[in-house]
Amino acid sequence: MSFGMIQFVHPAREDITLAGVLAALADPMRLQIVKNLLDRKDCMSCTEAAPCPDMAKSTLSNHFRVLREAGLIQTSKKGVEHRNVVREADINARFPKLLKTVLGFAEQG
Amino acid sequence: MSFGMIQFVHPAREDITLAGVLAALADPMRLQIVKNLLDRKDCMSCTEAAPCPDMAKSTLSNHFRVLREAGLIQTSKKGVEHRNVVREADINARFPKLLKTVLGFAEQG
Repeated sequence: MSFGMIQFVHPAREDITLAGVLAALADPMRLQIVKNLLDRKDCMSCTEAAPCPDMAKSTLSNHFRVLREAGLIQTSKKGVEHRNVVREADINARFPKLLKTVLGFAEQG
Repeated sequence: MSFGMIQFVHPAREDITLAGVLAALADPMRLQIVKNLLDRKDCMSCTEAAPCPDMAKSTLSNHFRVLREAGLIQTSKKGVEHRNVVREADINARFPKLLKTVLGFAEQG
């Protein structure tokens, strides 16, 4: 490990909890981030997946941290960017249909 | 309204939000309370629906408040007791299958 390297915390699949996932999804902005990431079906930077363009960078990175620590997304560093992808397989293995069900309601608030 | 009467806050069906419901369910103890209430299919006092018998009364009533304010349960006063019931019809109308999906995972954590 080199000095200054950012370590991202990713729970193992079996450590992903229902309470953690629900808490992470219990925010319209975070739901929108997950939706954006799933729509693209590819890694996205935090800015690309932002729910709105004028969100403060600290707010945005906090949302990504909550999603990451809940096990919903995988973040990796690519150059100066953080690349994010939804851990669809892990979430669907732990809680089948949960993501699809919740995201289906995401638009109605 | 008589003095000292406790007013319970219940959101109207259309004011129940996805974020509020998910946040309320994002706690193993509250999930267990909802499960207990649904299993009985009848009004229950807070103590009867408690997730564990030794839970502090203040903790328990806080959990019930969170569930009530999210629109998940309806509380009414009957004598000195608070009677609680899950607002199944309201939740299912707003977010079909959400409750069933989430409660299905409640045991595995």
